[in-house]
Amino acid sequence: MFNRRDFLRISGLSVAPALSPLRGFSTEGKSEAPKKEGLYFMGDGPMYSPEEFLEKLQQINKDKPVVKDFYGKGGSVEQLLKKFCEITGKESAIYMPTGTLANQLAIAVLSGENTKAFVQETSHVYRDEADSAQSVFNKRLIPLAAGKAYFTLEELQKSIEEHTQGEAFKSGIGAISIENPVRRNDGQFVPLAEIKKISAFCRAKGYKLHLDGARIYLASAFSGISVSEYASFFDTVYISLYKYLGASGGAVLCGPKDVIDKMEHLVKVHGGVVFSNWANAAMALHHLTGIEDRFKNFAAQSEQLFKKLNELPEIKITGIEGGTNISILKLAATVNSKKLSEILWQKYSIALPVAKPDGIVKLMVNDSLLTQSSEQIVAAFKDALGLSKV
Amino acid sequence: MFNRRDFLRISGLSVAPALSPLRGFSTEGKSEAPKKEGLYFMGDGPMYSPEEFLEKLQQINKDKPVVKDFYGKGGSVEQLLKKFCEITGKESAIYMPTGTLANQLAIAVLSGENTKAFVQETSHVYRDEADSAQSVFNKRLIPLAAGKAYFTLEELQKSIEEHTQGEAFKSGIGAISIENPVRRNDGQFVPLAEIKKISAFCRAKGYKLHLDGARIYLASAFSGISVSEYASFFDTVYISLYKYLGASGGAVLCGPKDVIDKMEHLVKVHGGVVFSNWANAAMALHHLTGIEDRFKNFAAQSEQLFKKLNELPEIKITGIEGGTNISILKLAATVNSKKLSEILWQKYSIALPVAKPDGIVKLMVNDSLLTQSSEQIVAAFKDALGLSKV
Amino acid sequence: MFNRRDFLRISGLSVAPALSPLRGFSTEGKSEAPKKEGLYFMGDGPMYSPEEFLEKLQQINKDKPVVKDFYGKGGSVEQLLKKFCEITGKESAIYMPTGTLANQLAIAVLSGENTKAFVQETSHVYRDEADSAQSVFNKRLIPLAAGKAYFTLEELQKSIEEHTQGEAFKSGIGAISIENPVRRNDGQFVPLAEIKKISAFCRAKGYKLHLDGARIYLASAFSGISVSEYASFFDTVYISLYKYLGASGGAVLCGPKDVIDKMEHLVKVHGGVVFSNWANAAMALHHLTGIEDRFKNFAAQSEQLFKKLNELPEIKITGIEGGTNISILKLAATVNSKKLSEILWQKYSIALPVAKPDGIVKLMVNDSLLTQSSEQIVAAFKDALGLSKV
Amino acid sequence: MFNRRDFLRISGLSVAPALSPLRGFSTEGKSEAPKKEGLYFMGDGPMYSPEEFLEKLQQINKDKPVVKDFYGKGGSVEQLLKKFCEITGKESAIYMPTGTLANQLAIAVLSGENTKAFVQETSHVYRDEADSAQSVFNKRLIPLAAGKAYFTLEELQKSIEEHTQGEAFKSGIGAISIENPVRRNDGQFVPLAEIKKISAFCRAKGYKLHLDGARIYLASAFSGISVSEYASFFDTVYISLYKYLGASGGAVLCGPKDVIDKMEHLVKVHGGVVFSNWANAAMALHHLTGIEDRFKNFAAQSEQLFKKLNELPEIKITGIEGGTNISILKLAATVNSKKLSEILWQKYSIALPVAKPDGIVKLMVNDSLLTQSSEQIVAAFKDALGLSKV
Repeated sequence: MFNRRDFLRISGLSVAPALSPLRGFSTEGKSEAPKKEGLYFMGDGPMYSPEEFLEKLQQINKDKPVVKDFYGKGGSVEQLLKKFCEITGKESAIYMPTGTLANQLAIAVLSGENTKAFVQETSHVYRDEADSAQSVFNKRLIPLAAGKAYFTLEELQKSIEEHTQGEAFKSGIGAISIENPVRRNDGQFVPLAEIKKISAFCRAKGYKLHLDGARIYLASAFSGISVSEYASFFDTVYISLYKYLGASGGAVLCGPKDVIDKMEHLVKVHGGVVFSNWANAAMALHHLTGIEDRFKNFAAQSEQLFKKLNELPEIKITGIEGGTNISILKLAATVNSKKLSEILWQKYSIALPVAKPDGIVKLMVNDSLLTQSSEQIVAAFKDALGLSKV
Repeated sequence: MFNRRDFLRISGLSVAPALSPLRGFSTEGKSEAPKKEGLYFMGDGPMYSPEEFLEKLQQINKDKPVVKDFYGKGGSVEQLLKKFCEITGKESAIYMPTGTLANQLAIAVLSGENTKAFVQETSHVYRDEADSAQSVFNKRLIPLAAGKAYFTLEELQKSIEEHTQGEAFKSGIGAISIENPVRRNDGQFVPLAEIKKISAFCRAKGYKLHLDGARIYLASAFSGISVSEYASFFDTVYISLYKYLGASGGAVLCGPKDVIDKMEHLVKVHGGVVFSNWANAAMALHHLTGIEDRFKNFAAQSEQLFKKLNELPEIKITGIEGGTNISILKLAATVNSKKLSEILWQKYSIALPVAKPDGIVKLMVNDSLLTQSSEQIVAAFKDALGLSKV
Repeated sequence: MFNRRDFLRISGLSVAPALSPLRGFSTEGKSEAPKKEGLYFMGDGPMYSPEEFLEKLQQINKDKPVVKDFYGKGGSVEQLLKKFCEITGKESAIYMPTGTLANQLAIAVLSGENTKAFVQETSHVYRDEADSAQSVFNKRLIPLAAGKAYFTLEELQKSIEEHTQGEAFKSGIGAISIENPVRRNDGQFVPLAEIKKISAFCRAKGYKLHLDGARIYLASAFSGISVSEYASFFDTVYISLYKYLGASGGAVLCGPKDVIDKMEHLVKVHGGVVFSNWANAAMALHHLTGIEDRFKNFAAQSEQLFKKLNELPEIKITGIEGGTNISILKLAATVNSKKLSEILWQKYSIALPVAKPDGIVKLMVNDSLLTQSSEQIVAAFKDALGLSKV
Repeated sequence: MFNRRDFLRISGLSVAPALSPLRGFSTEGKSEAPKKEGLYFMGDGPMYSPEEFLEKLQQINKDKPVVKDFYGKGGSVEQLLKKFCEITGKESAIYMPTGTLANQLAIAVLSGENTKAFVQETSHVYRDEADSAQSVFNKRLIPLAAGKAYFTLEELQKSIEEHTQGEAFKSGIGAISIENPVRRNDGQFVPLAEIKKISAFCRAKGYKLHLDGARIYLASAFSGISVSEYASFFDTVYISLYKYLGASGGAVLCGPKDVIDKMEHLVKVHGGVVFSNWANAAMALHHLTGIEDRFKNFAAQSEQLFKKLNELPEIKITGIEGGTNISILKLAATVNSKKLSEILWQKYSIALPVAKPDGIVKLMVNDSLLTQSSEQIVAAFKDALGLSKV
């Protein structure tokens, strides 16, 4: 099973250059040379080093002064929340310190007094939030579609039926949560048609629907469905600020006013009202500008690029069915993968994780792909592959 | 799916006679005739009518005055707890109003700060306690062996391994609970060999093991393993007072002193400290006397009886693999089941549930079987079958 | 500080005779003599011995067969709930195993998502429920009127104001609970005028009001206000089944349908749904018949009696301001209190607690006062006092 | 009652300049002039504008590259935790997003299964954490010393005695928490002698003691007791990162390893594990350097300064008994307070809050006092007072 922390740990490249590209660059001692931004086949978006983070924020602040928030109210946080309301078409939004809190509170509040909430077995909320739902938020998560990226309406209906009929004492059907795309399934997205059916069913039945859209922009880039359209089928939507929006943390939850109005108090009593959050808000606001185009472009470019790379005999890139920004790269046995990565990095600022012994690399694309043209990248690979024979 | 309340509701016989045999009898207007106790192919033990309950308790009180408890302390409750400590070999015991509370508190306290508890998917604690574990007691129940009576050590180990390795944030392995026998599996019991392996594993690893032994005496009667031996493999043991011990409610939880010592406060804060419980305690104490012999005897007699009944052409009784007191009776299509039940009840005080349209009756035996000899019962069936032809 | 358990423990008479009068009597070996019911200057109502309890229930069952409930549904429990709805004028009612659960769930449900609930500092819910509100039911109890029997509307308003204005983060004003009468204040009752003002305020503001009326019939007997009228000022009302209604435990909570409808599930998840409760329900139903008259009568009789007893030089009985069934008896130093109690008990079946060293007895009256006339009682005291000189 | 948010709201100066001094300055259009740091008679420490925050962090990063943490592990966060372990003499420390979470988890974990925790009635944990203790962390807070800065050992003992003896069901004595200094009491600190007595008592009894030392460095500056000595009397210590350590949020909790080891999981399940926290950690680390000296210096300087200012006829500054950095300034009726503040700010970069109609200003000092000498400040006041006559 895959997760970000594992990925970083097991990556063949040390963590340092992956996360601090510019500093990595400057250590080459060529400070006179113009800085070249890195192209990362890792991560969902920019993972700034402290230096880059501060530079980027200063530039943002120069363009338009960033205004402080107090405890998540006012200033750039307010601007960000307004922006997210426009994007998701929801009445209201609130800043939270973590996606875990956003998911848990959304599911808890949408479920009300009902204790059963339905989730993907592979979802973050079921597998990566340390049993928070059951141990703190008093909800029973019922996992659906084990191992798969999504459950169908039929599977949901069957489970609701079983849990409604099959228990001696009723405890009520609460919210349904859908993570999209699903990180534990290599970023596969949930088909819109299924979302539509589930949403129509839930609305007819009065069940509330939450979107764990931590990385919803990735689904959008590869499915062609706008974030706005995705959001329209859900009651609440959570979007992460640090996966690809450049923030150092934070989450935004959007939804109906009556739901979001309950959140401020709940965030407070769970100890989540942080004093000042303008930095994360300003970074996220900045990265939101033009994001849908940028993401569509790198998605399109990655498709072209992979076709061209697949013409190279040493390389075989395979997409993931219904996937987003993760593909599987298989290197020929004749390639020294470590050497390849080193050359790509040092000569071309292309960060490619080192392959596992079987030659497999999990290839992630993000908007750093737009820093180089497909032609440049293919040329770089050709050169590097030529120098990396076993 | 099967449960007691459904059973009573769907039984062809109205609830009243099944639960109030003596009054049912006296309504025949033959009050001068000696009362004859009923033989019930329903239920796990005596389900006294109010009249019978009071008569039985008065008789118990006459034999030896029952002493009141105060809030579950002293008197007949103290005697009962002492008795259960002897039976289960545990240091300490406490009276609780319900089995649900006993199961939930046992699992919660044995789990400590760990949130994951492992249970059978078919267990009462997972299916019939209204999500109490997740919504009140802060535990995540992880269901094993879906649809089956028990999980194996291998299945438990695999699940622990998956939940330990497969999640980004650890939340700790709590208690393991085993229900034995399993009511949702028609009373199938858990093989002792598996219990031994699981117990040895848990002790080696420091995981705590709870026995939901609501009906443990039924497992004991049909497996030949004493309650004492079963209990020896578990940290805590819950036994119901009303399934076959004649009480109108209540449960006893036995375990190590340090665990049970925490319970009084927990029962209080959950609103479960009832003022006076001597009636339930006195009834249970009374029915505990000689129970293992009585249960073994009716188990043995049921085996003989079913062999003889199976010689009748209209009857086919099939045992349940690894089952306890439930068997499947299939009536020939030539039998009017309703008529059969009426005659058996009115002429012979034998309560037989009316078959479903397919001729199937879920046959339960209990110690009321000992009120008539196999020969008498077979003769009664022969007579009644002759009078119940379609 | 006073509570029932302490009272029983510290009473000069051993617990046994106080609780088991008839058995105590029969041990005198005069079984041919007609039984004489005891008169108890202890307790709020009958505290039956097991033998008495069973006899009383059999008599009730003979008059009209008691019908079993299943898990608090149907049978005599249903009858009891219907009766309490009539008495309290509420739409709905539910049986609970304990008053603690009734109080806690009423306050929790009436408070909804608001966390602050206002109670008397001397109330059972604040002092004798083991911090259940804070540790299980997620409410903050704000105590008012320290040491006193009740808070005024002004005190309530001031506290609400302070807690609304004086905190940086709002957490919402929940329910207000009033215990009446107040056991920790020697049974003092809350003036109706204050209840009316508080009720009008709460209704105007939308705050919900709960009556912990465990012993509300005592308030009624001594204030002349009917239970029905008291109940009319509250949203929910809890009445105990064992303080003076003869049951061995149990409570009933009455209120609006939407509030009570939530309770069944909540009782279940807290482990409080007991299998069978017909005995408690039948006893309570029986004792409810004619209770208001009976209680008014013994209240009136106690007033007359105390006047007459106060004419005896050895006795000085003082009422408690705004009190109910508790008075303070001061014995002259010339009286041997232990001897007095023994003679009263053995010769006249009058149970009088032994005085503390200062000659003080906390005198409680209840409907056992009606078993003897004031003249008989005064005569008995005269005789016994004459024989109890130091 | 006073709190930071009220203070900012009610301050006569608009929030903007107070919080964004340099930008406020630059708006004067004299960008060529050297920047002059502001002297603030407001706040406990630097409240950087975004621009200042970024500049300060860049400077820190230039001096020594800041290293990123992952979810509060590693990098500058690890350095900060190590530093705080040294300062407090505790084994272990953990980063938390808020002081509320630090206080609540410390009290909850130190209390274990006991539900009663003792706190000042004026404390943040009792008054400004939205009933988090009762509604999320299952603790009952028992307030002591209403309205006062601290409780004595005698008051604590009396309350423990009352709560141990005076309740029918025990629920256990949990942790004791002391806030020092107390913001709701204008920053008064708790006398060391009382802390010593309470600590000795708690250690003898096995009660655990938590220090809400959000602003402990202020207590230290004015009492002369080192943070290290304060910490030695407590089991756990929480210190805020943003009151005077320049961070934009965050808290550190220090304590014994077994206590702190439980926290990571608890922070996660309450949704408090933020992705990246290096900025707050680096800022706090920077401001910790030399802090004790700096704070002692401004405390000493403020004493001198106030003496000199008190020689001016328009000014009367009064200290608060046992206070820290807050004093009361009373302006003569002849002074136009608004004008005074404007002149001080524009001409001398001295931020003085505008007085209330009665001429009262709550004067706070902090290490910005060190940016100007007492002589300069007095001269500035003289000049400004001369220009601010009514």
